[in-house]
Amino acid sequence: MIKVGIVGGTGYTGVELLRLLALHPQVKLQVITSRADAGTRVDQMFPSLRGFVDLLFVHPDEAHLEQCNLVFFATPNGIAMQQARVLLDAGVRVIDLAADFRLQDIASWEKWYGMTHACPDLVAEAVYGLPEINREKIKSARLIANPGCYPTAVQLGFIPLLEAGVIEPGSLIADAKSGVSGAGRRAEIPALFAEAGDNFKAYGVAGHRHLPEIKQGLASILGGGVGLTFVPHLTPLIRGIHATLYGKLTRDVDLQALFEQRYAGESFVDVMPAGSHPETRSVRGSNRCRIAVHRPQGGDTVVVLSVIDNLLKGAAGQAVQNMNIMFGFPENMALNIVPLLP
Amino acid sequence: MIKVGIVGGTGYTGVELLRLLALHPQVKLQVITSRADAGTRVDQMFPSLRGFVDLLFVHPDEAHLEQCNLVFFATPNGIAMQQARVLLDAGVRVIDLAADFRLQDIASWEKWYGMTHACPDLVAEAVYGLPEINREKIKSARLIANPGCYPTAVQLGFIPLLEAGVIEPGSLIADAKSGVSGAGRRAEIPALFAEAGDNFKAYGVAGHRHLPEIKQGLASILGGGVGLTFVPHLTPLIRGIHATLYGKLTRDVDLQALFEQRYAGESFVDVMPAGSHPETRSVRGSNRCRIAVHRPQGGDTVVVLSVIDNLLKGAAGQAVQNMNIMFGFPENMALNIVPLLP
Amino acid sequence: MIKVGIVGGTGYTGVELLRLLALHPQVKLQVITSRADAGTRVDQMFPSLRGFVDLLFVHPDEAHLEQCNLVFFATPNGIAMQQARVLLDAGVRVIDLAADFRLQDIASWEKWYGMTHACPDLVAEAVYGLPEINREKIKSARLIANPGCYPTAVQLGFIPLLEAGVIEPGSLIADAKSGVSGAGRRAEIPALFAEAGDNFKAYGVAGHRHLPEIKQGLASILGGGVGLTFVPHLTPLIRGIHATLYGKLTRDVDLQALFEQRYAGESFVDVMPAGSHPETRSVRGSNRCRIAVHRPQGGDTVVVLSVIDNLLKGAAGQAVQNMNIMFGFPENMALNIVPLLP
Amino acid sequence: MIKVGIVGGTGYTGVELLRLLALHPQVKLQVITSRADAGTRVDQMFPSLRGFVDLLFVHPDEAHLEQCNLVFFATPNGIAMQQARVLLDAGVRVIDLAADFRLQDIASWEKWYGMTHACPDLVAEAVYGLPEINREKIKSARLIANPGCYPTAVQLGFIPLLEAGVIEPGSLIADAKSGVSGAGRRAEIPALFAEAGDNFKAYGVAGHRHLPEIKQGLASILGGGVGLTFVPHLTPLIRGIHATLYGKLTRDVDLQALFEQRYAGESFVDVMPAGSHPETRSVRGSNRCRIAVHRPQGGDTVVVLSVIDNLLKGAAGQAVQNMNIMFGFPENMALNIVPLLP
Repeated sequence: MIKVGIVGGTGYTGVELLRLLALHPQVKLQVITSRADAGTRVDQMFPSLRGFVDLLFVHPDEAHLEQCNLVFFATPNGIAMQQARVLLDAGVRVIDLAADFRLQDIASWEKWYGMTHACPDLVAEAVYGLPEINREKIKSARLIANPGCYPTAVQLGFIPLLEAGVIEPGSLIADAKSGVSGAGRRAEIPALFAEAGDNFKAYGVAGHRHLPEIKQGLASILGGGVGLTFVPHLTPLIRGIHATLYGKLTRDVDLQALFEQRYAGESFVDVMPAGSHPETRSVRGSNRCRIAVHRPQGGDTVVVLSVIDNLLKGAAGQAVQNMNIMFGFPENMALNIVPLLP
Repeated sequence: MIKVGIVGGTGYTGVELLRLLALHPQVKLQVITSRADAGTRVDQMFPSLRGFVDLLFVHPDEAHLEQCNLVFFATPNGIAMQQARVLLDAGVRVIDLAADFRLQDIASWEKWYGMTHACPDLVAEAVYGLPEINREKIKSARLIANPGCYPTAVQLGFIPLLEAGVIEPGSLIADAKSGVSGAGRRAEIPALFAEAGDNFKAYGVAGHRHLPEIKQGLASILGGGVGLTFVPHLTPLIRGIHATLYGKLTRDVDLQALFEQRYAGESFVDVMPAGSHPETRSVRGSNRCRIAVHRPQGGDTVVVLSVIDNLLKGAAGQAVQNMNIMFGFPENMALNIVPLLP
Repeated sequence: MIKVGIVGGTGYTGVELLRLLALHPQVKLQVITSRADAGTRVDQMFPSLRGFVDLLFVHPDEAHLEQCNLVFFATPNGIAMQQARVLLDAGVRVIDLAADFRLQDIASWEKWYGMTHACPDLVAEAVYGLPEINREKIKSARLIANPGCYPTAVQLGFIPLLEAGVIEPGSLIADAKSGVSGAGRRAEIPALFAEAGDNFKAYGVAGHRHLPEIKQGLASILGGGVGLTFVPHLTPLIRGIHATLYGKLTRDVDLQALFEQRYAGESFVDVMPAGSHPETRSVRGSNRCRIAVHRPQGGDTVVVLSVIDNLLKGAAGQAVQNMNIMFGFPENMALNIVPLLP
Repeated sequence: MIKVGIVGGTGYTGVELLRLLALHPQVKLQVITSRADAGTRVDQMFPSLRGFVDLLFVHPDEAHLEQCNLVFFATPNGIAMQQARVLLDAGVRVIDLAADFRLQDIASWEKWYGMTHACPDLVAEAVYGLPEINREKIKSARLIANPGCYPTAVQLGFIPLLEAGVIEPGSLIADAKSGVSGAGRRAEIPALFAEAGDNFKAYGVAGHRHLPEIKQGLASILGGGVGLTFVPHLTPLIRGIHATLYGKLTRDVDLQALFEQRYAGESFVDVMPAGSHPETRSVRGSNRCRIAVHRPQGGDTVVVLSVIDNLLKGAAGQAVQNMNIMFGFPENMALNIVPLLP
């Protein structure tokens, strides 16, 4: 049984963490902070939690986070880097669901996120929390940079191809589509129902913050630079990411076998049968990534379809998976969830 | 550990039963039948079940349902009444999620459902599976008529008022709104995305099959006839029913206390704080009914808001709840689910 | 050809006015104001208007609205009452799409809207712009209080019954459902896609600002007070209101004939054939109200179903209809639109 | 004034044709056929047309289509090819909204559509009705093959690049997303609201019927073969296609100027300002295609974003545009529609 704190529990990753942790047999939810909503019952803001979470939001100053074994930051970018050191020094392990520790290149991070980084040395220590790549390092990590939602879906789709060296690394394309919860629980006009509903659009074509994160991840697999065009789109889903990935094959290979072997031991990556088209709803509410690999008309273009629930494998679910790994719990504890379909 | 069979596993109540039963620690999923899809893997039709259900659909003739302890019928109306007797005679207990055993008045059933009833005597034996009313009878029942979705939401909202005798029983109004999954997984034009999406309409105002079921239930509570106007509507939700109920108060009463006391011991009925407006998503994927009671402007009209997930408390969840009661399992076993929000 | 100005053109009623007026053969769009977005091209904010509207938003101080023949206020409540007098004094006619001039009882208005009214004398002069009731007065009005969306749908449904005196006026029920655009183009969390999508809820059961407006309208028809329970709901539509109205019949009457006769000459009220269930999408993008009247099981409860597009007959469309009446244009000029289905 | 007939008026392209033609000042809607619904009022099936279309569906045998000047086929594939010759022989001009005359390569057509072609000679005569390419030929055509929805969006996006010869033609990628109305008004399970709602998936990755149509079109522009990977997706929109197109630049070019010049004279292709992200809703209900062109991070990959309403520019709207061209009407007659936003 570990004591867990959540900083910033009023967003979608926060409520999703609560949904998962409320039923985790090895977790005692100790404290949830919110500056704006301190004193409010958590289940008043999120009635779905009535009967499961009996806490009030606590002001950060009174949270005594140092008494936790683990603290999740479900905060906007730039918060965790201000608070992580004192927690780490107190022996608390930290998982940041935001982007503060994701990019090893500090200059790049500062450019894309528009702020000065508060603790570059901790970035160097932080482990990028993609278990399918970094499981061993995660076990002993003090500080986890939980991956972004797009980067998770895109990397899991490209990994087998890049590890096997069967595609040209210089001309990768990731055409990704996200549900609106990816924008967070923030009052902004483009995320309104009457704006995002019955509407589809690309955004950030000139450059999106997840681009350098994906490129860093793919480059580390490859041991060299990659060329990637990344186009994110907003689609009228509440949850879900669908990444459609394109690469140019450099040699003949049994793609289906390649993917199945790569993910044979992974609980949360499901390689679908040949010819499949994974649907986002097939992972709704679950921590799974489902992948299918195609080679249309037998040509030299490989097409990978990769779906996740952006709030689970793309955020809170992966964070709990990382926690399970860090504390030696079964990796799917509290994550053994059948997706909600329909 | 009981052996469970499902007849008709290809609809939404079928897949929802599978979602719940796959994780039920006391259930062994023995067999799932489908005439049309015999031989197909269940998780090929419903990829959300990959890793959880390893069965194939079996033709009814080869299902050996008599070897089960319990059989759920997740079939269209008129099937269970053909097959229940032979199962009951073999010592199998039966829960029918369709309407075959819901109406005690056979003539009324035959009028509303347009067929001759195959076994009126079993109707007399069947227990109406609304645990909040019939828990004791359910324990020993051989045959359960699992309530309809609208009837569950409407009855749970009216029960405290009728039991306490504080509203005029002759002029009840139930204005109910359902998500589209309530129409089942049937290829019909009005349920298409391009028809039901971004659209709202009433239907069946002249008469809906759930009307006599609700009236029967309310009358049995009251010990006398009720007058009810029931108007169902189709709303662009996948899941969820919202019933807005209107009654005329006959005397002053503390409505909030009345509801809280009535449901004090019920795991699956949550009386919200005074002034609340329960949302359908606050019960999405869970077996809970959330209720709020209002008396607008202190007048003599009481307004009850009652929400359920039509596939859970309105169908498969309530069926599993009934199973738990019948077999002496904890009532919330496999139903201890945090709703999926957002 | 009249010169028209719009104050507050950045909301949904604003863009809808622009959509209609851009093709109106007798209107010259003179000026559109926005304090926050002055200098921005209108079609940059609303790309749907590219090729149709070539204006920039102008700061109110530089708008020279007094040079218009007509000014629409598509502003939040409380703005038009500050600016109407100077325009009226300059000979400009005014249509307020907000609520400033809707309630004749100033004390009631101040209670429901939480501000002191700036010009009670203009309220007395203002004509409530429901053409089906007030067409003659609208012709010569200087100042129109354009009705609210719910009040339009509800009043049009009750009018024939109250005028004919065939229902009890003391126990009316209006169960109304609105699309999310009714909340306006405002950055607020409850209107986010991930909040309002796949979700249904009632709100404002204790009291909604449209309640006194509806009661005032119905009372003026009846020549006496009415008792009304009004429960609004939010449904995951972009556009559309569906009002389900309940009344108790006091005598036998041919309801279908009653409604058909009442609206025989009305272009924008369509009484559907007996037994119909009007859908919101059947009026999407058009200024029409479609109504069906039912008497379930031949009882003494009458059920009226009334649908409008909240942005058209519930706001901008009705405003243009009023403009057409005021200036002697054909009433359906620029409103002769086939609804968009699917 | 021309007499127009529609064969197969009960699908989405049929009702959309009716919406447009009902207000076309030069069109007399003569007859609408339906085998299954003969005798039914058109506006009973589509209440949105009440007050605009006063016809009944007529059985094809009694339709006297030869008395029309123009007949639209809004039928499934394989119907128009059976009936076109007799109409053409009678001097009637024909626009087929299905695929019967789209592919010049008969063998390819027969492979993709799984039937023997009934009139290869008419295919040779038919003009592919993409006005931005074939306007001159359309003017005098007797028989128009109205383009598919995906092919319209994709071709309009690639045309300027291919005509200018600035991209490698061998490795084009078209990642396209369609709303559900693209599947037609057919009762099929995957198009149900509870299946397609809140869900996103690719389909037909191995091969889609629009692939050879797009390749044929692009090859004819290029004067040589193209290599194209085409991945269609289903997205929870009612209407709308968003094509995201990728090509490899072979030389430096001012992309924005290239696109603006190419479409300078086109009413229905709107090149958005540099840096734009066109939304599907910005063309909802209108015949417009909006395009933006990007070159992310100044690399050698060009990204084109192209949106249309699949029922307008992707079907009925383009058909009316073709009709206008064929009969010498202003090209935007009855198509001068402001998109419906929100």
